Amino acid sequence: MLTECVPGDALFTDLVSSAHRRFRRLVAEAEGKAKAFYQKTLGREATIQQIVDEVFAAVEAEGDVAVARYAKAFDGAGATESFRVSKERMARAWTLIPDDLRQAIQVAIRQVTDYQRRLLPASFGTDLDEPLGVRWMPLDRVGAYVPGGTSGSLPLFSSVIMNLVPAKVAGVAQTVLVSPPRADGTLATELLATAHAVGVDEVYAVGGIPAIAALACGTPSIKAVDKLVGPGNIVVTMAKQRAYGRVDLDMLAGPSEILVLADDSAHPAFVAADLLSQAEHDALAMAVCIAVGHGVASGVQRELAVQLERLPAGRQEVARESIVRFGRLVRVNSVVEAIDVANRIAAEHVELMLRDPHPAIAGLRHAGAIFVGPWSPEPIGDYVAGPSHTLPTGGTARMWSGIAVDTFLRRTSIINFSEADFRRLAPHGEVLAAAEGLEAHAHAIRIRRYPPRIVRPPTSVNIIVPPNQPG
Amino acid sequence: MLTECVPGDALFTDLVSSAHRRFRRLVAEAEGKAKAFYQKTLGREATIQQIVDEVFAAVEAEGDVAVARYAKAFDGAGATESFRVSKERMARAWTLIPDDLRQAIQVAIRQVTDYQRRLLPASFGTDLDEPLGVRWMPLDRVGAYVPGGTSGSLPLFSSVIMNLVPAKVAGVAQTVLVSPPRADGTLATELLATAHAVGVDEVYAVGGIPAIAALACGTPSIKAVDKLVGPGNIVVTMAKQRAYGRVDLDMLAGPSEILVLADDSAHPAFVAADLLSQAEHDALAMAVCIAVGHGVASGVQRELAVQLERLPAGRQEVARESIVRFGRLVRVNSVVEAIDVANRIAAEHVELMLRDPHPAIAGLRHAGAIFVGPWSPEPIGDYVAGPSHTLPTGGTARMWSGIAVDTFLRRTSIINFSEADFRRLAPHGEVLAAAEGLEAHAHAIRIRRYPPRIVRPPTSVNIIVPPNQPG
Repeated sequence: MLTECVPGDALFTDLVSSAHRRFRRLVAEAEGKAKAFYQKTLGREATIQQIVDEVFAAVEAEGDVAVARYAKAFDGAGATESFRVSKERMARAWTLIPDDLRQAIQVAIRQVTDYQRRLLPASFGTDLDEPLGVRWMPLDRVGAYVPGGTSGSLPLFSSVIMNLVPAKVAGVAQTVLVSPPRADGTLATELLATAHAVGVDEVYAVGGIPAIAALACGTPSIKAVDKLVGPGNIVVTMAKQRAYGRVDLDMLAGPSEILVLADDSAHPAFVAADLLSQAEHDALAMAVCIAVGHGVASGVQRELAVQLERLPAGRQEVARESIVRFGRLVRVNSVVEAIDVANRIAAEHVELMLRDPHPAIAGLRHAGAIFVGPWSPEPIGDYVAGPSHTLPTGGTARMWSGIAVDTFLRRTSIINFSEADFRRLAPHGEVLAAAEGLEAHAHAIRIRRYPPRIVRPPTSVNIIVPPNQPG
Repeated sequence: MLTECVPGDALFTDLVSSAHRRFRRLVAEAEGKAKAFYQKTLGREATIQQIVDEVFAAVEAEGDVAVARYAKAFDGAGATESFRVSKERMARAWTLIPDDLRQAIQVAIRQVTDYQRRLLPASFGTDLDEPLGVRWMPLDRVGAYVPGGTSGSLPLFSSVIMNLVPAKVAGVAQTVLVSPPRADGTLATELLATAHAVGVDEVYAVGGIPAIAALACGTPSIKAVDKLVGPGNIVVTMAKQRAYGRVDLDMLAGPSEILVLADDSAHPAFVAADLLSQAEHDALAMAVCIAVGHGVASGVQRELAVQLERLPAGRQEVARESIVRFGRLVRVNSVVEAIDVANRIAAEHVELMLRDPHPAIAGLRHAGAIFVGPWSPEPIGDYVAGPSHTLPTGGTARMWSGIAVDTFLRRTSIINFSEADFRRLAPHGEVLAAAEGLEAHAHAIRIRRYPPRIVRPPTSVNIIVPPNQPG
């Protein structure tokens, strides 16, 4: 079922390089299709990059009119002139979903809230009770993108929880959600219900480049955000990249990945099920098993074939294509070798199904999220465990972290020196400033070392050193 | 000296908008000059963006040869074929600088180290002693850019401390420094000495677009980094933007800014000196005083004129141009109004020279760094206080933070559920997965709720549930 390889062979080399290049492959494939799409929708050929630039320029110049025009061109019938979804509509959606789903959403929100609260960093010195401080402060306004469902399926509304509950815990006052409308112009009831439960402040039924451009540039009806988060398709990702600098981003996300490190203590059916859970996302998703020992390898191959057959139509085709194109089974001789492979791939999700996971977790440097043991399947993390499921892909776990409360915080340093603090460090500061040739910097230090008398009109308080800093 | 305005008037509106648009103005001005520069250096007209794209493509295809070719074209005589500076050269530089400078560098490194250590976030659950955990882990390899000195002055070598000591505290194993060579092909002794003291692992004498492209794409002699930090000129910043996604970035930095909130308790000479300390950086730097009360306003104007005259040639012209173009004095009636103005500008450096700074610090939402009272001049923060001087500019304090230890850390979540943890949450996870139509996700949960017996060859251990997770 899974193509097999061992570290060092040609297939293995290809695996490591594909793991990091699927995103670029995706861009290349998408650009190939873009010509025909823009010919159909805009009446002319163009690259995605050209359209991204064009939409940003148009939205900046024309605002909502441009957003509506491009949304109409790209999304067709569903595109609406007024994007905002009312709070009443969201509240009603909450009453329309089944009881067990409502409960599951509440449980997920509570789990994410509890976990994210533990990650809140501590400020210090903000009461000016020490010479140095730091203050963590939420962003004012953030936007999350939720892609539409592919071919009739629902949008992944759990990502509203995973992307915006951490923002709520951070204390962000204005949370914004954008998602492309369905053919009838509405958003899915489940999506609106989740947004209601999370307490999202503004929801707009607009997707794709126009949505990203609106949140980056701002329009009269959609105010610009400070940070844009959440994965989208490749076009959305390219628009996000264009927005970097005007707004901050969480990351640039590509297709999903799972890496399962398993030895003979692992349950092959669990391993196979978890591999398939990522394979079903996307034909470009990557599911890899690193097998320490022959027993688990053959068990996983057998289980995978059985379980794939049982997947319902639609999901089965996607999972099969992903397994055939990118699924691999890497046979290794030791956990040490397995960890080395995992670090080279730097996958989004890494499961450790090992008799003793401690050495593996200690050696694993690059992973978006780690799932340990048989009772921590990746999908439990996708929905209800607590950490966000928005994680770095395509090797970017080397540099990016998944979404968490700190994604929505900024850090400001505070310097609150007494005269003694100042005098202790001032000579060194002056030496450095002078050495860099920054005379005005050196002077701003020097003038305090030998402060001049203040010359004031006689009516004002006449002080040499302000009284709020007695030193 | 400073053009005066009050909140709401036309000059004030222009101030707020300039504060956020100086970066784009810079891009426009730079693009205007680029044509002539590329005509001279490459023999053809081009925009900066085109050259950035071209250099990245060339470096990716040809490696070091392309880096050397473009470095030669742009930096002329100083460009070298082999970029690496030896550790011996760095160690020797340390012995060549004056004693007081060596001591000042050591003091700065110690201060930054102490402060950054306080910001280290705490991991938990990494010993698998609880169901959920988080691990903070340093990046493997980071690169810092240090611009060359303008017109014969030294490069700002203090930025080696401010950009890379936090990386060292984070535990980054490979720290890399790039900086453009001088006309004789070498880097300044002070720069190398500082790199030696900080313990920078690799130093390369290459600057501009080729340096950024090399660190982003990797070449045989300059391995790609995971994250690129440090400000540069506009061309370097555009190259950094191009690199985003291949590598992570700290931010996109523009010209420096200072905002001094002062009431009549402030020493006008201190305020003026601090305004000039930023104005001397760059003709596009912005120095603004928000004056609560008439006494301080007139005092600052008077002092500024006096102190500007006393600045040495070179720095004086730069500071004067900055003060004339972007320097402003905003007269306000209350600290509340002053804070509102400061939040709209969202400046890199905000000084609070107020009788009672507590209400101001509580209300100030957007600032790269805050300096409180008469003994915390901005330049003391630039060199020796402890927080990094690499801070967000041009209104980006709304979304970015300055460099700190967390700039060089990644966060990985750990899920380590027992069977009981799993069973408590599994039904909700299954409901959510099913509602999203992700059948393989639902199945990966379901199969654990009702695990099948493992079928194994008789030689292997036959277990239903691996023993390392007894539940």
